[in-house]
Amino acid sequence: MKVQDEHYKDRTAASFSRQAVMKTLDAKLTIDSPGRVSISFPFNEIFTQQKGFIHAGIISTVLDSACGYAAYTLMSAKADVLTVEFKVNLLRPAKGSHFTASAHVVKAGRSISVVEATLHSAELGEQKPVATMTGTIMTIEK
Amino acid sequence: MKVQDEHYKDRTAASFSRQAVMKTLDAKLTIDSPGRVSISFPFNEIFTQQKGFIHAGIISTVLDSACGYAAYTLMSAKADVLTVEFKVNLLRPAKGSHFTASAHVVKAGRSISVVEATLHSAELGEQKPVATMTGTIMTIEK
Amino acid sequence: MKVQDEHYKDRTAASFSRQAVMKTLDAKLTIDSPGRVSISFPFNEIFTQQKGFIHAGIISTVLDSACGYAAYTLMSAKADVLTVEFKVNLLRPAKGSHFTASAHVVKAGRSISVVEATLHSAELGEQKPVATMTGTIMTIEK
Amino acid sequence: MKVQDEHYKDRTAASFSRQAVMKTLDAKLTIDSPGRVSISFPFNEIFTQQKGFIHAGIISTVLDSACGYAAYTLMSAKADVLTVEFKVNLLRPAKGSHFTASAHVVKAGRSISVVEATLHSAELGEQKPVATMTGTIMTIEK
Repeated sequence: MKVQDEHYKDRTAASFSRQAVMKTLDAKLTIDSPGRVSISFPFNEIFTQQKGFIHAGIISTVLDSACGYAAYTLMSAKADVLTVEFKVNLLRPAKGSHFTASAHVVKAGRSISVVEATLHSAELGEQKPVATMTGTIMTIEK
Repeated sequence: MKVQDEHYKDRTAASFSRQAVMKTLDAKLTIDSPGRVSISFPFNEIFTQQKGFIHAGIISTVLDSACGYAAYTLMSAKADVLTVEFKVNLLRPAKGSHFTASAHVVKAGRSISVVEATLHSAELGEQKPVATMTGTIMTIEK
Repeated sequence: MKVQDEHYKDRTAASFSRQAVMKTLDAKLTIDSPGRVSISFPFNEIFTQQKGFIHAGIISTVLDSACGYAAYTLMSAKADVLTVEFKVNLLRPAKGSHFTASAHVVKAGRSISVVEATLHSAELGEQKPVATMTGTIMTIEK
Repeated sequence: MKVQDEHYKDRTAASFSRQAVMKTLDAKLTIDSPGRVSISFPFNEIFTQQKGFIHAGIISTVLDSACGYAAYTLMSAKADVLTVEFKVNLLRPAKGSHFTASAHVVKAGRSISVVEATLHSAELGEQKPVATMTGTIMTIEK
Protein backbone atom coordinates (compact mmCIF):
# COMPACT_ATOMS: atom_id res chain seq x y z
CA MET A 1 0.00 0.00 0.00
CA LYS A 2 1.12 3.58 -0.64
CA VAL A 3 2.47 5.73 2.20
CA GLN A 4 1.89 9.47 2.48
CA ASP A 5 4.75 9.97 4.91
CA GLU A 6 8.11 8.39 4.24
CA HIS A 7 8.91 8.56 7.96
CA TYR A 8 5.91 6.38 8.76
CA LYS A 9 7.96 3.84 10.72
CA ASP A 10 9.42 6.37 13.15
CA ARG A 11 6.11 8.18 13.47
CA THR A 12 4.23 4.95 14.20
CA ALA A 13 6.83 3.70 16.68
CA ALA A 14 6.74 7.08 18.45
CA SER A 15 2.97 7.02 18.89
CA PHE A 16 3.07 3.39 20.07
CA SER A 17 5.64 4.33 22.69
CA ARG A 18 3.16 6.88 24.08
CA GLN A 19 0.55 4.16 24.77
CA ALA A 20 1.20 3.53 28.46
CA VAL A 21 -1.02 0.42 28.33
CA MET A 22 1.36 -1.21 25.84
CA LYS A 23 4.21 -0.78 28.33
CA THR A 24 1.98 -2.20 31.07
CA LEU A 25 1.33 -5.27 28.90
CA ASP A 26 5.03 -5.49 27.95
CA ALA A 27 3.95 -5.34 24.29
CA LYS A 28 6.35 -4.84 21.38
CA LEU A 29 5.45 -3.37 17.98
CA THR A 30 6.83 -4.65 14.67
CA ILE A 31 6.08 -2.61 11.55
CA ASP A 32 6.00 -5.20 8.79
CA SER A 33 5.21 -3.00 5.79
CA PRO A 34 2.91 -0.08 4.98
CA GLY A 35 -0.51 -1.13 6.24
CA ARG A 36 0.79 -4.16 8.18
CA VAL A 37 1.99 -4.30 11.78
CA SER A 38 2.18 -6.90 14.54
CA ILE A 39 2.22 -6.53 18.31
CA SER A 40 3.53 -9.29 20.60
CA PHE A 41 3.08 -9.66 24.33
CA PRO A 42 3.78 -12.32 26.94
CA PHE A 43 1.32 -14.20 29.14
CA ASN A 44 0.91 -12.48 32.49
CA GLU A 45 -1.30 -13.89 35.22
CA ILE A 46 -2.50 -10.41 36.26
CA PHE A 47 -4.45 -10.05 32.99
CA THR A 48 -6.38 -13.32 33.19
CA GLN A 49 -10.07 -14.16 33.52
CA GLN A 50 -11.67 -16.69 35.87
CA LYS A 51 -10.11 -19.73 34.16
CA GLY A 52 -6.58 -18.41 34.04
CA PHE A 53 -6.54 -17.43 30.34
CA ILE A 54 -5.79 -13.92 29.09
CA HIS A 55 -9.04 -11.91 29.26
CA ALA A 56 -10.82 -11.26 25.95
CA GLY A 57 -10.61 -7.52 26.60
CA ILE A 58 -6.83 -7.63 26.97
CA ILE A 59 -6.67 -9.54 23.70
CA SER A 60 -8.83 -6.77 22.24
CA THR A 61 -6.50 -4.12 23.61
CA VAL A 62 -3.61 -5.51 21.60
CA LEU A 63 -5.73 -6.28 18.52
CA ASP A 64 -7.12 -2.72 18.57
CA SER A 65 -3.67 -1.13 18.85
CA ALA A 66 -2.49 -3.35 16.00
CA CYS A 67 -5.45 -2.25 13.85
CA GLY A 68 -4.93 1.40 14.73
CA TYR A 69 -1.23 1.40 13.97
CA ALA A 70 -1.66 -0.57 10.75
CA ALA A 71 -3.94 2.25 9.59
CA TYR A 72 -1.60 4.88 11.04
CA THR A 73 1.33 3.76 8.87
CA LEU A 74 -0.65 4.91 5.81
CA MET A 75 -1.68 8.30 7.18
CA SER A 76 -0.09 11.71 6.62
CA ALA A 77 2.42 13.10 9.10
CA LYS A 78 -0.24 15.41 10.49
CA ALA A 79 -2.95 12.83 11.11
CA ASP A 80 -3.95 11.07 14.28
CA VAL A 81 -5.88 7.84 14.61
CA LEU A 82 -9.18 7.15 16.38
CA THR A 83 -11.00 3.84 16.72
CA VAL A 84 -14.66 4.21 15.77
CA GLU A 85 -15.66 0.62 16.53
CA PHE A 86 -14.43 -2.94 16.47
CA LYS A 87 -15.80 -6.45 16.61
CA VAL A 88 -13.97 -9.39 18.08
CA ASN A 89 -14.61 -13.11 17.67
CA LEU A 90 -13.04 -15.36 20.28
CA LEU A 91 -12.16 -18.62 18.58
CA ARG A 92 -10.17 -20.48 21.22
CA PRO A 93 -9.00 -20.02 24.82
CA ALA A 94 -5.90 -17.79 24.86
CA LYS A 95 -3.48 -20.53 25.88
CA GLY A 96 0.21 -19.91 25.53
CA SER A 97 3.24 -18.06 26.78
CA HIS A 98 3.38 -15.43 24.02
CA PHE A 99 0.77 -13.90 21.73
CA THR A 100 1.01 -11.91 18.51
CA ALA A 101 -1.68 -9.72 16.98
CA SER A 102 -1.13 -9.22 13.23
CA ALA A 103 -3.14 -6.48 11.51
CA HIS A 104 -3.49 -5.43 7.90
CA VAL A 105 -5.47 -2.62 6.31
CA VAL A 106 -8.30 -3.88 4.09
CA LYS A 107 -9.37 -0.45 2.86
CA ALA A 108 -7.60 2.84 3.50
CA GLY A 109 -10.08 5.65 2.93
CA ARG A 110 -9.57 9.37 3.28
CA SER A 111 -11.41 9.51 6.58
CA ILE A 112 -12.30 5.88 7.35
CA SER A 113 -10.07 2.79 7.20
CA VAL A 114 -11.11 -0.80 7.73
CA VAL A 115 -8.54 -3.10 9.28
CA GLU A 116 -8.51 -6.81 10.11
CA ALA A 117 -6.36 -8.46 12.74
CA THR A 118 -5.78 -11.96 14.09
CA LEU A 119 -4.25 -13.07 17.38
CA HIS A 120 -2.10 -16.18 17.49
CA SER A 121 -0.35 -17.84 20.38
CA ALA A 122 3.19 -19.15 20.11
CA GLU A 123 2.02 -22.63 21.19
CA LEU A 124 -1.16 -23.00 19.10
CA GLY A 125 0.49 -21.61 15.98
CA GLU A 126 -0.77 -20.01 12.78
CA GLN A 127 -3.35 -22.70 12.04
CA LYS A 128 -5.25 -22.12 15.27
CA PRO A 129 -6.01 -18.43 15.68
CA VAL A 130 -7.20 -17.35 19.12
CA ALA A 131 -9.24 -14.32 18.06
CA THR A 132 -10.03 -12.06 15.11
CA MET A 133 -10.93 -8.37 14.96
CA THR A 134 -12.43 -6.14 12.32
CA GLY A 135 -12.01 -2.49 13.20
CA THR A 136 -13.09 0.83 11.76
CA ILE A 137 -10.45 3.51 12.22
CA MET A 138 -10.88 7.21 11.63
CA THR A 139 -8.23 9.65 10.43
CA ILE A 140 -8.21 12.82 12.52
CA GLU A 141 -6.37 15.75 10.98
CA LYS A 142 -4.53 17.54 13.76
CA MET B 1 -35.72 -12.02 34.53
CA LYS B 2 -36.02 -15.49 36.07
CA VAL B 3 -33.07 -17.06 37.88
CA GLN B 4 -32.28 -20.78 37.83
CA ASP B 5 -30.05 -20.59 40.89
CA GLU B 6 -31.20 -18.69 43.96
CA HIS B 7 -27.57 -18.26 45.03
CA TYR B 8 -26.79 -16.39 41.82
CA LYS B 9 -25.35 -13.38 43.65
CA ASP B 10 -22.77 -15.36 45.60
CA ARG B 11 -21.93 -17.51 42.60
CA THR B 12 -21.44 -14.46 40.35
CA ALA B 13 -19.38 -12.59 42.93
CA ALA B 14 -17.20 -15.67 43.43
CA SER B 15 -16.44 -16.02 39.72
CA PHE B 16 -15.74 -12.29 39.41
CA SER B 17 -13.25 -12.53 42.27
CA ARG B 18 -11.34 -15.15 40.26
CA GLN B 19 -10.78 -12.71 37.36
CA ALA B 20 -7.27 -11.50 38.17
CA VAL B 21 -7.58 -8.76 35.55
CA MET B 22 -10.45 -7.18 37.50
CA LYS B 23 -8.20 -6.92 40.55
CA THR B 24 -5.47 -5.43 38.34
CA LEU B 25 -7.95 -2.79 37.14
CA ASP B 26 -9.23 -2.25 40.71
CA ALA B 27 -12.72 -3.02 39.39
CA LYS B 28 -15.75 -3.61 41.64
CA LEU B 29 -18.85 -5.62 40.70
CA THR B 30 -22.40 -4.65 41.65
CA ILE B 31 -25.17 -7.16 40.96
CA ASP B 32 -28.20 -4.99 40.35
CA SER B 33 -30.82 -7.67 39.66
CA PRO B 34 -31.07 -10.93 37.72
CA GLY B 35 -29.65 -10.14 34.28
CA ARG B 36 -28.22 -6.75 35.31
CA VAL B 37 -24.80 -5.98 36.72
CA SER B 38 -22.41 -3.03 36.77
CA ILE B 39 -18.64 -2.88 37.12
CA SER B 40 -16.84 0.30 38.19
CA PHE B 41 -13.15 1.12 37.96
CA PRO B 42 -10.97 4.18 38.48
CA PHE B 43 -8.82 6.02 35.95
CA ASN B 44 -5.26 4.75 36.00
CA GLU B 45 -2.53 6.21 33.81
CA ILE B 46 -0.97 2.78 33.19
CA PHE B 47 -3.98 1.73 31.07
CA THR B 48 -4.03 4.73 28.73
CA GLN B 49 -3.48 5.16 25.00
CA GLN B 50 -1.33 7.77 23.25
CA LYS B 51 -3.54 10.71 24.25
CA GLY B 52 -3.81 9.83 27.90
CA PHE B 53 -7.34 8.37 27.80
CA ILE B 54 -8.21 4.85 28.94
CA HIS B 55 -7.50 2.49 26.01
CA ALA B 56 -10.53 1.17 24.11
CA GLY B 57 -9.43 -2.39 24.88
CA ILE B 58 -9.42 -1.76 28.63
CA ILE B 59 -12.90 -0.29 28.29
CA SER B 60 -13.82 -3.49 26.43
CA THR B 61 -12.34 -5.62 29.19
CA VAL B 62 -14.75 -4.16 31.71
CA LEU B 63 -17.71 -4.09 29.30
CA ASP B 64 -17.09 -7.75 28.42
CA SER B 65 -16.91 -8.85 32.05
CA ALA B 66 -20.11 -6.90 32.72
CA CYS B 67 -21.84 -8.65 29.79
CA GLY B 68 -20.56 -12.06 30.85
CA TYR B 69 -21.63 -11.69 34.48
CA ALA B 70 -25.02 -10.23 33.56
CA ALA B 71 -25.63 -13.45 31.59
CA TYR B 72 -24.07 -15.53 34.36
CA THR B 73 -26.61 -14.37 36.96
CA LEU B 74 -29.31 -16.16 34.93
CA MET B 75 -27.45 -19.45 34.47
CA SER B 76 -27.72 -22.67 36.47
CA ALA B 77 -25.31 -23.39 39.32
CA LYS B 78 -23.42 -25.82 37.09
CA ALA B 79 -22.89 -23.53 34.11
CA ASP B 80 -19.90 -21.48 33.10
CA VAL B 81 -19.81 -18.50 30.78
CA LEU B 82 -17.86 -18.01 27.56
CA THR B 83 -17.77 -14.93 25.34
CA VAL B 84 -18.33 -15.88 21.71
CA GLU B 85 -17.94 -12.37 20.28
CA PHE B 86 -18.56 -8.73 21.02
CA LYS B 87 -18.73 -5.42 19.21
CA VAL B 88 -17.82 -2.10 20.72
CA ASN B 89 -18.62 1.41 19.55
CA LEU B 90 -16.47 4.17 20.97
CA LEU B 91 -18.64 7.25 21.29
CA ARG B 92 -16.42 9.69 23.19
CA PRO B 93 -12.91 9.86 24.66
CA ALA B 94 -12.87 8.06 28.01
CA LYS B 95 -12.42 11.20 30.11
CA GLY B 96 -12.99 11.01 33.81
CA SER B 97 -11.78 9.73 37.14
CA HIS B 98 -14.20 6.78 37.44
CA PHE B 99 -16.04 4.64 34.92
CA THR B 100 -19.00 2.29 35.20
CA ALA B 101 -20.01 -0.40 32.73
CA SER B 102 -23.69 -1.34 33.07
CA ALA B 103 -24.88 -4.51 31.34
CA HIS B 104 -28.30 -6.07 30.88
CA VAL B 105 -29.34 -9.28 29.19
CA VAL B 106 -31.44 -8.68 26.08
CA LYS B 107 -32.15 -12.37 25.39
CA ALA B 108 -31.26 -15.29 27.62
CA GLY B 109 -31.25 -18.43 25.53
CA ARG B 110 -30.49 -21.98 26.55
CA SER B 111 -27.05 -21.91 24.97
CA ILE B 112 -26.67 -18.34 23.67
CA SER B 113 -27.40 -15.06 25.44
CA VAL B 114 -27.23 -11.58 23.97
CA VAL B 115 -26.20 -8.80 26.31
CA GLU B 116 -25.85 -5.03 25.89
CA ALA B 117 -23.65 -2.79 27.99
CA THR B 118 -22.79 0.90 28.18
CA LEU B 119 -19.83 2.62 29.77
CA HIS B 120 -20.28 5.97 31.48
CA SER B 121 -17.77 8.19 33.19
CA ALA B 122 -18.52 9.90 36.49
CA GLU B 123 -17.78 13.32 34.93
CA LEU B 124 -19.61 13.00 31.59
CA GLY B 125 -22.68 11.42 33.19
CA GLU B 126 -25.54 9.26 31.94
CA GLN B 127 -26.37 11.48 28.98
CA LYS B 128 -22.94 11.10 27.41
CA PRO B 129 -22.00 7.43 27.18
CA VAL B 130 -18.37 6.69 26.40
CA ALA B 131 -18.86 3.32 24.72
CA THR B 132 -21.43 0.60 24.04
CA MET B 133 -21.03 -3.15 23.64
CA THR B 134 -23.24 -5.88 22.26
CA GLY B 135 -21.95 -9.31 23.23
CA THR B 136 -22.87 -12.90 22.51
CA ILE B 137 -22.31 -15.13 25.52
CA MET B 138 -22.40 -18.91 25.56
CA THR B 139 -23.51 -21.14 28.41
CA ILE B 140 -21.04 -23.96 29.01
CA GLU B 141 -22.36 -26.83 31.11
CA LYS B 142 -19.54 -27.99 33.36
CA MET C 1 -32.24 15.82 19.66
CA LYS C 2 -31.55 19.04 17.77
CA VAL C 3 -32.26 19.31 14.05
CA GLN C 4 -30.14 21.35 11.63
CA ASP C 5 -32.83 21.43 8.98
CA GLU C 6 -36.39 22.27 9.91
CA HIS C 7 -37.64 20.45 6.80
CA TYR C 8 -36.05 17.21 8.01
CA LYS C 9 -39.30 15.26 7.72
CA ASP C 10 -39.87 16.06 4.05
CA ARG C 11 -36.20 15.61 3.23
CA THR C 12 -36.09 12.21 4.96
CA ALA C 13 -39.32 11.02 3.39
CA ALA C 14 -38.06 12.10 -0.04
CA SER C 15 -34.82 10.13 0.27
CA PHE C 16 -36.70 7.09 1.57
CA SER C 17 -39.00 7.21 -1.46
CA ARG C 18 -35.91 6.93 -3.69
CA GLN C 19 -34.89 3.59 -2.12
CA ALA C 20 -36.34 1.19 -4.68
CA VAL C 21 -35.73 -1.74 -2.34
CA MET C 22 -38.14 -0.24 0.21
CA LYS C 23 -40.85 -0.23 -2.44
CA THR C 24 -39.96 -3.82 -3.32
CA LEU C 25 -40.39 -4.80 0.35
CA ASP C 26 -43.60 -2.72 0.60
CA ALA C 27 -42.00 -0.86 3.51
CA LYS C 28 -43.41 2.31 5.07
CA LEU C 29 -41.43 4.96 6.95
CA THR C 30 -42.67 6.75 10.05
CA ILE C 31 -40.60 9.68 11.35
CA ASP C 32 -41.24 9.63 15.08
CA SER C 33 -39.08 12.58 16.17
CA PRO C 34 -35.63 13.99 15.38
CA GLY C 35 -33.28 11.01 15.60
CA ARG C 36 -36.08 8.41 15.75
CA VAL C 37 -37.77 6.63 12.87
CA SER C 38 -39.54 3.32 12.29
CA ILE C 39 -40.03 1.28 9.15
CA SER C 40 -42.75 -1.37 8.86
CA PHE C 41 -43.13 -4.10 6.29
CA PRO C 42 -45.33 -7.15 5.79
CA PHE C 43 -44.33 -10.81 5.64
CA ASN C 44 -43.78 -11.93 2.07
CA GLU C 45 -42.87 -15.49 1.18
CA ILE C 46 -40.46 -14.38 -1.57
CA PHE C 47 -38.04 -12.98 1.06
CA THR C 48 -37.79 -16.10 3.23
CA GLN C 49 -34.97 -18.47 4.09
CA GLN C 50 -35.05 -22.28 4.10
CA LYS C 51 -37.47 -22.54 7.04
CA GLY C 52 -39.99 -20.05 5.74
CA PHE C 53 -38.99 -17.12 7.98
CA ILE C 54 -37.92 -13.71 6.67
CA HIS C 55 -34.20 -13.92 5.82
CA ALA C 56 -31.80 -12.24 8.27
CA GLY C 57 -30.46 -10.10 5.43
CA ILE C 58 -33.90 -8.74 4.61
CA ILE C 59 -34.35 -7.92 8.29
CA SER C 60 -30.99 -6.15 8.07
CA THR C 61 -32.11 -4.23 5.00
CA VAL C 62 -34.95 -2.64 6.93
CA LEU C 63 -32.91 -2.18 10.13
CA ASP C 64 -30.14 -0.49 8.13
CA SER C 65 -32.53 1.90 6.37
CA ALA C 66 -34.09 2.71 9.75
CA CYS C 67 -30.63 3.45 11.22
CA GLY C 68 -29.63 5.54 8.22
CA TYR C 69 -32.79 7.63 8.20
CA ALA C 70 -32.76 8.12 11.97
CA ALA C 71 -29.30 9.69 11.51
CA TYR C 72 -30.46 11.54 8.40
CA THR C 73 -33.20 13.43 10.28
CA LEU C 74 -30.43 15.19 12.26
CA MET C 75 -28.25 16.13 9.29
CA SER C 76 -28.08 19.40 7.37
CA ALA C 77 -30.09 19.90 4.19
CA LYS C 78 -26.94 19.38 2.12
CA ALA C 79 -25.78 16.14 3.68
CA ASP C 80 -26.18 12.59 2.49
CA VAL C 81 -25.96 9.43 4.52
CA LEU C 82 -23.62 6.45 4.11
CA THR C 83 -23.53 3.26 6.17
CA VAL C 84 -19.98 2.48 7.27
CA GLU C 85 -20.78 -0.78 9.05
CA PHE C 86 -23.44 -2.55 11.07
CA LYS C 87 -23.77 -5.53 13.36
CA VAL C 88 -26.93 -7.57 13.72
CA ASN C 89 -27.92 -10.04 16.43
CA LEU C 90 -30.72 -12.43 15.53
CA LEU C 91 -32.65 -13.14 18.72
CA ARG C 92 -35.66 -15.13 17.49
CA PRO C 93 -37.08 -16.51 14.24
CA ALA C 94 -38.82 -13.70 12.33
CA LYS C 95 -42.34 -15.07 12.84
CA GLY C 96 -45.26 -12.83 12.10
CA SER C 97 -47.34 -11.06 9.52
CA HIS C 98 -45.86 -7.59 10.01
CA PHE C 99 -42.51 -6.31 11.27
CA THR C 100 -41.34 -2.92 12.49
CA ALA C 101 -37.76 -1.72 12.77
CA SER C 102 -37.41 1.15 15.26
CA ALA C 103 -34.16 3.12 15.24
CA HIS C 104 -32.80 5.88 17.47
CA VAL C 105 -29.57 7.82 17.28
CA VAL C 106 -27.27 7.12 20.23
CA LYS C 107 -24.61 9.65 19.25
CA ALA C 108 -24.83 12.20 16.46
CA GLY C 109 -21.32 13.30 15.59
CA ARG C 110 -20.18 15.76 12.95
CA SER C 111 -19.04 13.02 10.61
CA ILE C 112 -19.98 9.77 12.39
CA SER C 113 -23.27 8.82 14.03
CA VAL C 114 -24.02 5.67 15.99
CA VAL C 115 -27.55 4.34 15.78
CA GLU C 116 -29.33 1.41 17.42
CA ALA C 117 -32.38 -0.35 16.05
CA THR C 118 -34.65 -3.21 17.05
CA LEU C 119 -37.01 -5.29 14.95
CA HIS C 120 -40.30 -6.45 16.42
CA SER C 121 -43.04 -8.55 14.92
CA ALA C 122 -46.70 -7.71 15.35
CA GLU C 123 -47.35 -11.17 16.84
CA LEU C 124 -44.37 -11.53 19.21
CA GLY C 125 -44.72 -7.96 20.49
CA GLU C 126 -42.39 -5.50 22.19
CA GLN C 127 -41.16 -7.95 24.84
CA LYS C 128 -39.76 -10.38 22.29
CA PRO C 129 -37.54 -8.54 19.83
CA VAL C 130 -36.57 -10.46 16.69
CA ALA C 131 -33.26 -8.72 15.99
CA THR C 132 -31.10 -5.77 17.02
CA MET C 133 -28.67 -3.66 15.00
CA THR C 134 -25.93 -1.23 15.93
CA GLY C 135 -24.85 0.82 12.94
CA THR C 136 -22.19 3.41 12.20
CA ILE C 137 -23.43 6.04 9.77
CA MET C 138 -21.33 8.65 8.02
CA THR C 139 -22.40 12.15 7.02
CA ILE C 140 -21.37 12.95 3.46
CA GLU C 141 -21.45 16.62 2.56
CA LYS C 142 -22.72 16.89 -0.99
CA MET D 1 -11.49 -28.93 6.21
CA LYS D 2 -13.02 -32.27 7.17
CA VAL D 3 -16.60 -33.11 6.24
CA GLN D 4 -18.93 -35.19 8.43
CA ASP D 5 -21.31 -35.97 5.59
CA GLU D 6 -19.98 -37.11 2.24
CA HIS D 7 -23.15 -35.89 0.56
CA TYR D 8 -22.50 -32.36 1.76
CA LYS D 9 -22.75 -30.88 -1.74
CA ASP D 10 -26.21 -32.23 -2.45
CA ARG D 11 -27.40 -31.43 1.06
CA THR D 12 -26.14 -27.84 0.85
CA ALA D 13 -27.56 -27.29 -2.65
CA ALA D 14 -30.92 -28.67 -1.49
CA SER D 15 -31.14 -26.29 1.47
CA PHE D 16 -30.08 -23.35 -0.71
CA SER D 17 -32.85 -24.17 -3.16
CA ARG D 18 -35.36 -23.81 -0.30
CA GLN D 19 -34.33 -20.18 0.35
CA ALA D 20 -37.03 -18.35 -1.58
CA VAL D 21 -35.14 -15.07 -1.21
CA MET D 22 -32.22 -16.50 -3.22
CA LYS D 23 -34.59 -17.21 -6.08
CA THR D 24 -36.00 -13.68 -5.75
CA LEU D 25 -32.45 -12.28 -6.04
CA ASP D 26 -31.65 -14.68 -8.92
CA ALA D 27 -28.69 -15.92 -6.86
CA LYS D 28 -26.63 -19.01 -7.74
CA LEU D 29 -24.62 -21.12 -5.28
CA THR D 30 -21.21 -22.62 -6.03
CA ILE D 31 -19.75 -25.06 -3.52
CA ASP D 32 -16.01 -24.61 -3.88
CA SER D 33 -14.76 -27.08 -1.27
CA PRO D 34 -15.66 -28.13 2.27
CA GLY D 35 -16.02 -24.88 4.22
CA ARG D 36 -15.95 -22.67 1.10
CA VAL D 37 -18.87 -21.51 -1.01
CA SER D 38 -19.69 -18.56 -3.25
CA ILE D 39 -23.02 -17.02 -4.23
CA SER D 40 -23.39 -14.80 -7.29
CA PHE D 41 -26.26 -12.51 -8.23
CA PRO D 42 -26.93 -9.85 -10.85
CA PHE D 43 -27.62 -6.15 -10.36
CA ASN D 44 -31.33 -5.47 -10.22
CA GLU D 45 -32.74 -1.97 -9.87
CA ILE D 46 -35.53 -3.15 -7.54
CA PHE D 47 -32.98 -3.85 -4.77
CA THR D 48 -31.24 -0.47 -4.80
CA GLN D 49 -30.93 2.35 -2.26
CA GLN D 50 -31.39 6.08 -2.85
CA LYS D 51 -28.31 6.42 -5.09
CA GLY D 52 -29.06 3.49 -7.33
CA PHE D 53 -26.57 1.03 -5.78
CA ILE D 54 -27.53 -2.36 -4.35
CA HIS D 55 -28.72 -1.80 -0.76
CA ALA D 56 -26.30 -2.83 2.02
CA GLY D 57 -28.97 -5.15 3.43
CA ILE D 58 -29.30 -7.03 0.15
CA ILE D 59 -25.53 -7.40 0.07
CA SER D 60 -25.82 -8.75 3.62
CA THR D 61 -28.51 -11.19 2.56
CA VAL D 62 -26.15 -12.84 0.11
CA LEU D 63 -23.10 -12.61 2.41
CA ASP D 64 -25.12 -14.20 5.23
CA SER D 65 -26.35 -17.08 3.08
CA ALA D 66 -22.78 -17.61 1.88
CA CYS D 67 -21.53 -17.71 5.50
CA GLY D 68 -24.33 -20.05 6.56
CA TYR D 69 -23.80 -22.50 3.71
CA ALA D 70 -20.01 -22.47 4.08
CA ALA D 71 -20.58 -23.63 7.67
CA TYR D 72 -23.32 -26.03 6.55
CA THR D 73 -20.99 -27.97 4.24
CA LEU D 74 -19.06 -29.08 7.35
CA MET D 75 -22.08 -30.14 9.42
CA SER D 76 -23.57 -33.59 9.89
CA ALA D 77 -26.47 -34.76 7.75
CA LYS D 78 -28.85 -34.14 10.65
CA ALA D 79 -27.83 -30.59 11.46
CA ASP D 80 -29.41 -27.32 10.51
CA VAL D 81 -27.82 -23.91 10.44
CA LEU D 82 -28.81 -20.75 12.32
CA THR D 83 -27.17 -17.32 12.13
CA VAL D 84 -26.50 -15.97 15.61
CA GLU D 85 -25.07 -12.63 14.51
CA PHE D 86 -23.06 -10.94 11.79
CA LYS D 87 -21.15 -7.74 11.20
CA VAL D 88 -20.76 -6.09 7.84
CA ASN D 89 -18.31 -3.41 6.71
CA LEU D 90 -19.24 -1.54 3.56
CA LEU D 91 -16.02 -0.65 1.78
CA ARG D 92 -17.20 0.75 -1.55
CA PRO D 93 -20.47 1.50 -3.36
CA ALA D 94 -21.86 -1.71 -4.84
CA LYS D 95 -21.22 -0.74 -8.46
CA GLY D 96 -21.40 -3.41 -11.10
CA SER D 97 -23.56 -5.75 -13.10
CA HIS D 98 -22.77 -8.93 -11.12
CA PHE D 99 -21.67 -9.59 -7.57
CA THR D 100 -20.13 -12.61 -5.86
CA ALA D 101 -20.02 -13.31 -2.14
CA SER D 102 -17.23 -15.75 -1.23
CA ALA D 103 -17.29 -17.28 2.25
CA HIS D 104 -14.88 -19.53 4.12
CA VAL D 105 -15.10 -21.06 7.56
CA VAL D 106 -12.47 -19.69 9.96
CA LYS D 107 -13.36 -21.98 12.84
CA ALA D 108 -15.78 -24.89 12.79
CA GLY D 109 -16.82 -25.65 16.34
CA ARG D 110 -19.21 -28.28 17.61
CA SER D 111 -21.98 -25.76 18.19
CA ILE D 112 -20.54 -22.44 16.96
CA SER D 113 -18.75 -21.69 13.69
CA VAL D 114 -17.12 -18.43 12.67
CA VAL D 115 -17.20 -17.59 8.99
CA GLU D 116 -15.77 -14.71 6.94
CA ALA D 117 -17.08 -13.54 3.59
CA THR D 118 -16.25 -10.88 1.03
CA LEU D 119 -18.37 -9.42 -1.73
CA HIS D 120 -16.78 -8.49 -5.04
CA SER D 121 -18.29 -6.96 -8.12
CA ALA D 122 -17.42 -8.19 -11.60
CA GLU D 123 -16.33 -4.69 -12.60
CA LEU D 124 -14.30 -3.63 -9.54
CA GLY D 125 -12.55 -7.00 -9.31
CA GLU D 126 -10.77 -8.91 -6.56
CA GLN D 127 -8.57 -5.99 -5.48
CA LYS D 128 -11.52 -3.77 -4.60
CA PRO D 129 -13.92 -5.63 -2.33
CA VAL D 130 -17.33 -4.04 -1.87
CA ALA D 131 -18.11 -5.44 1.59
CA THR D 132 -16.91 -7.92 4.20
CA MET D 133 -18.85 -9.97 6.74
CA THR D 134 -17.86 -11.89 9.85
CA GLY D 135 -20.67 -14.17 10.98
CA THR D 136 -21.32 -16.49 13.91
CA ILE D 137 -23.28 -19.56 12.86
CA MET D 138 -24.88 -22.10 15.16
CA THR D 139 -25.33 -25.80 14.50
CA ILE D 140 -28.84 -26.95 15.38
CA GLU D 141 -29.26 -30.70 15.73
CA LYS D 142 -32.62 -31.61 14.24
